[in-house]
Amino acid sequence: MLINGGCPKNILSIKDALEALEGRWKLLILFALSSGPKRFKQLAREVVGITDKTLSKELKNLEANKLVTRSVHDTFPPTVEYTITSHGLSLEKVIEELHYWGLAHRAEIIGN
Amino acid sequence: MLINGGCPKNILSIKDALEALEGRWKLLILFALSSGPKRFKQLAREVVGITDKTLSKELKNLEANKLVTRSVHDTFPPTVEYTITSHGLSLEKVIEELHYWGLAHRAEIIGN
Repeated sequence: MLINGGCPKNILSIKDALEALEGRWKLLILFALSSGPKRFKQLAREVVGITDKTLSKELKNLEANKLVTRSVHDTFPPTVEYTITSHGLSLEKVIEELHYWGLAHRAEIIGN
Repeated sequence: MLINGGCPKNILSIKDALEALEGRWKLLILFALSSGPKRFKQLAREVVGITDKTLSKELKNLEANKLVTRSVHDTFPPTVEYTITSHGLSLEKVIEELHYWGLAHRAEIIGN
């Protein structure tokens, strides 16, 4: 198993992942986008607790890391939509394991 | 698949997990402890880039979340050791998926 041994070589890829996903918001934003493209205001409503300023900053960072794309549609007024990329969708297993661990963690912390 | 749909119920457990593991250091500290109990100075060396102040703060938080235990041994001078708990070890799959995704992310970002 990976965790047995704590190999220093593996720590680099884990560090890369943690830096790209840093903070409590990025995975939640990606999770919200996994059900389809969304506009800024929709995202701000779905990711409960995030401020507009933080959401804007996080979206820029996610774009730089090729995890979301931002597209401007030629409407009146112009509309902006955010879409998760295939690279963003490749986080599915990470999100899935976090979901299961989050359930176990809640049981562990509340159960004792 | 979990990510398809972005079910609001699942977002709670993901939020719980992200709050317990927030920041770039906690999983790296747990990863370092996965090879065996360590003293503070050993950890500070292995988790490259962390300051003593941050390590100390993170260890307290990990202890509060039952992910590590701190034990004081009756030696001259007394020695303090940190050990990963079974709850901490249950993060193995999360860390494993982050490792694989980190490898893919590096390829994606550097490869383009």
